[in-house]
Amino acid sequence: MAANTIALSISSNLAASKHLNSLQTRGLIPPPTISFPLASAKSKAGDLSLSSTTVSRSPVRASASQLINEPVHDKQRSMNSPTVVQVDLGNRSYPIYIGAGLLDQSELLQRHVHGKRVLVVTNERVAPLYLDRTIDALTRGNPNVTVESVILPDGEKYKDMDTLMKVFDKAIESRLDRRCTFVALGGGVIGDMCGYAAASYLRGVNFIQIPTTVMAQVDSSVGGKTGINHRLGKNLIGAFYQPQCVLVDTDTLNTLPDREMASGLAEVIKYGLIRDAEFFEWQEKNIEALLARDPAALAYAIKRSCENKADVVSQDEKESGLRATLNLGHTFGHAIETGFGYGEWLHGEAVAAGTVMAVDMSYRLGWIDESIVERVNNILKRAKLPTTPPESMTVSMFKSIMAVDKKVADGLLRLILLKGPLGNCVFTGDYDREALDATLRAFSKC
Amino acid sequence: MAANTIALSISSNLAASKHLNSLQTRGLIPPPTISFPLASAKSKAGDLSLSSTTVSRSPVRASASQLINEPVHDKQRSMNSPTVVQVDLGNRSYPIYIGAGLLDQSELLQRHVHGKRVLVVTNERVAPLYLDRTIDALTRGNPNVTVESVILPDGEKYKDMDTLMKVFDKAIESRLDRRCTFVALGGGVIGDMCGYAAASYLRGVNFIQIPTTVMAQVDSSVGGKTGINHRLGKNLIGAFYQPQCVLVDTDTLNTLPDREMASGLAEVIKYGLIRDAEFFEWQEKNIEALLARDPAALAYAIKRSCENKADVVSQDEKESGLRATLNLGHTFGHAIETGFGYGEWLHGEAVAAGTVMAVDMSYRLGWIDESIVERVNNILKRAKLPTTPPESMTVSMFKSIMAVDKKVADGLLRLILLKGPLGNCVFTGDYDREALDATLRAFSKC
Repeated sequence: MAANTIALSISSNLAASKHLNSLQTRGLIPPPTISFPLASAKSKAGDLSLSSTTVSRSPVRASASQLINEPVHDKQRSMNSPTVVQVDLGNRSYPIYIGAGLLDQSELLQRHVHGKRVLVVTNERVAPLYLDRTIDALTRGNPNVTVESVILPDGEKYKDMDTLMKVFDKAIESRLDRRCTFVALGGGVIGDMCGYAAASYLRGVNFIQIPTTVMAQVDSSVGGKTGINHRLGKNLIGAFYQPQCVLVDTDTLNTLPDREMASGLAEVIKYGLIRDAEFFEWQEKNIEALLARDPAALAYAIKRSCENKADVVSQDEKESGLRATLNLGHTFGHAIETGFGYGEWLHGEAVAAGTVMAVDMSYRLGWIDESIVERVNNILKRAKLPTTPPESMTVSMFKSIMAVDKKVADGLLRLILLKGPLGNCVFTGDYDREALDATLRAFSKC
Repeated sequence: MAANTIALSISSNLAASKHLNSLQTRGLIPPPTISFPLASAKSKAGDLSLSSTTVSRSPVRASASQLINEPVHDKQRSMNSPTVVQVDLGNRSYPIYIGAGLLDQSELLQRHVHGKRVLVVTNERVAPLYLDRTIDALTRGNPNVTVESVILPDGEKYKDMDTLMKVFDKAIESRLDRRCTFVALGGGVIGDMCGYAAASYLRGVNFIQIPTTVMAQVDSSVGGKTGINHRLGKNLIGAFYQPQCVLVDTDTLNTLPDREMASGLAEVIKYGLIRDAEFFEWQEKNIEALLARDPAALAYAIKRSCENKADVVSQDEKESGLRATLNLGHTFGHAIETGFGYGEWLHGEAVAAGTVMAVDMSYRLGWIDESIVERVNNILKRAKLPTTPPESMTVSMFKSIMAVDKKVADGLLRLILLKGPLGNCVFTGDYDREALDATLRAFSKC
C-alpha cells in the first residue's frame, strides 16, 4: 500500500480507527491440543520442501557499509552518509541506500539515471509530499535531464491493468525512448506497478525504486518482483525485473500514517521468524520504539531487513525454492486481500493475520513449540496488527483463492511453515491436509 | 498476422483482391538523381551505427542438422525427420524444428512440455484447422497432460491489452500454476501475445511456438520478442522471452491465404538484403516457386531464414545493435500499420513498402547503386507485395508515428539502411535528415 500522508480526511480517519479497534478486540482462537506425529511431516526426497537446516539463516552475504560522504550541496538538508546494502546478482547487482535525508543528496540518485529522460510514477498521496523534491534531486545541477510524472490513484485496488495503462500512455505520449529511466516514488503498489511498467515498456527500460513506506523499504522495493493484481488473485501478472538502485530516505516515514507504519512491521517480524531469531528477539525489545518511529530503531530494522532480503534474493532470484520462504503468512494473507476486497485491509495487516494462521498450522503439525505461537501473537498485537482474518472470510473462500496462489505446483499448494527452533521454516507441500483444514476452520466460518 | 484458412468469405475475398489490385497499379516513384556526398554518411565514433563490415553476414553459427528419426507412432502421418536450427543463447538455447507433418510427431512436442497442464492460445481461423491436431499431439500416449485452450479473435487489431487479458483470465480460471506450458498456435499476432502472456503470467511460465504462417515461421516466432500494440504505436509493450522450442510444420502453409503467403515473403527478402546476398540471388530465381508453395523451395527458404535469424539473435538477444538490422523497412512499415489502422494491411505488406522506402533513402544518401533499388522493387512486385505506402499516409503521419519507434534514442531516430554491395546494411542515426524528408515526400502527401 502506498498511502503516505500526515492527514487522512476525517471520515477515513474515523473509519480506520473504528476498524482497528474491532480488530484488536478479536484475539487468536487458541489451537486445539491435537498434535500430529512428526513422522507425517517429514519431507520426501525430490519435493521442494527445504530442511530446517537449509532454510535457517545463513551468514548474510550482502554487505552493509558506509559510503564516503559526497560533497555537500548547498541545498542538502542532511549530511548523513547512507548505509549501503548490496543485492548481489551478477551483472544485475545493485545497491540499497538507507539513510535520513537521502532525497536531498542528488548525487546519489543521478548516478543511477540512464539517459536524459525520466518518468516518475507516484500517487495522489505521495505526490504533494515528495514529488517536487524528487524532481529537484533528479535535475539539480543537471539541466540536460527532463522529468515527466504520472500521478496514479492511491491504493491496492488500483494495482490493475487499467491503472498500469496510464503509465504506458504517459510514457508513449511523452515519447520516452529506450534510454529513459522510470522512478517509482511511493509504497509497494507504486513500486510493483512502476517496475512492471519498466519491465514491459519497449520491452524493458531502467528503473529506480524510491520507497516511502516501511512495507516498501523493508521488502517490496528489493528483489525485483513486480506486477499487478487480477480480480481473482494477487500479483498474478508481472515480471522479475531488477532496479538500478533502491533509495530509502527514512525521513519519508515521518509522514506515514500509523496504520501504514504497523503494516510494514509485519514484514520486519517475518524476517525474524523465518531466518533471524536474533533479530526477532531484538524486535521483542524494540517494537514500541519502532511504532514510535525512533530513528535509530527504524534505521536498524530497515537495514537488517534489507540484509535478510538481499541475502535470500541473491541466492534464489527467481524463487525456485528459498525465496518462497519470504512469503510466510502471504498465502493466507493474499486470500484475505483478494476475498475481503483489495485495499480493505493493508497488505501487512493481511500478512499479520496470515502469519498467525501459518504459525497455528505449524503448531498443529507438531513442528513448533507453543511458546512460539504465543510470542508471535504477542508481538503482532503489540504492533497493533490483526491476529485473525476478517469475520466475513469463510473456509471455502480461503480454499478457492489459495488454489490460484503462485506457489501451487502440479495442483499441490505449498506453504511456508515454521519448523524447529525460532528462526527456522520449511517451504513444503508435504503436510497433513487435516492440519490446514483445522486451521482454516479455527480462523473462519465454514 | 495470423489468418490461416482455405476459404475466406466471399466479401472479404473480393475486398482483398480489389485492395491488392489497387496496390499493384502503383509503382515506386523514381528517386530524384540528387546524390549526397558519402562524407556526410560516415559514422562518428561512439554512435550506434555499425560499419558495413560488422553487419554483413558472418558465418552462420546456428547449426542445421537432421534429427535421428523418432519411433513412428501408428497415427503419425509423416515419417519426415525435421531439420533443426539451434538458437544459441546459453541456458536459454532452444531448437527450431522445421519439416512437413511435424504436428503429428507428438514426441517432438511433448519433450518440451513442462508440467502436466497446457494452455493453447490460438485464434478463430486457426482453431478449426489445427487445434484438435495440436491437442492430440500434446496428449497422445500422455494421459497425464490436460490441455486448455483460448481462442482469440483474428487480426493485428486485436493485438492489444484487452485481448491479452483473455489469456490471463483463461489461465487463472483454469488454475494453471507455474509448472504449466503455454503453446502459441497461429501467426505472428498469436505468437507475440502468447509469448508476452507467458512472460508475465505468474512472472513467467514456459512456452512453445507453433507458427502457422510464413511470417511467423521465418521471423516472429524465433528470437523471443513478444508484446502487444498500443494505439499510438506497434509492439511498444512487451518482453524479451524465449520459448522452449519452435515447431514449424510446413504443411500448415497449405491452408494459408495467398495474401498471407506473400506477406511472409517480405521478411524472407529482408534477410537477403541485410546480410545474405547469396540467399537474395536464390530468391530472385525462386520467388514464383515460393508463391506457388513448392515444398522444397519453401523448406529451404524457411530454414535459411531461421539460420539467419538465429545467428543474429544469438549474437545480440536484447537488440543492443546488430539485432536492430532485422528491422529493415519496419520503422516505415510500423508507421503504415499504425497510421493506416492495425490490420488494414498485413505486416509484411507494410514492411514491403517500408523496405522500398528504406532502399530509396539509402540510394538518396549515395550508399547503394541504383541496380539494388531496381532489384528490390522487382522482387517485391513479383512477390505481389506493395511497393508504395497507402495513399492516405502523409509526411506528418510518418514523422509523428516514427517518433515513438523503439529505435529512437535520446530523441534521434535510428534507421536500418542499405550501404555498400548487396547484403550489407547499417543501423544508424547518422544520416542527412534531408534524405529522410525527401523519401517521405516522394512516397506520401505533404
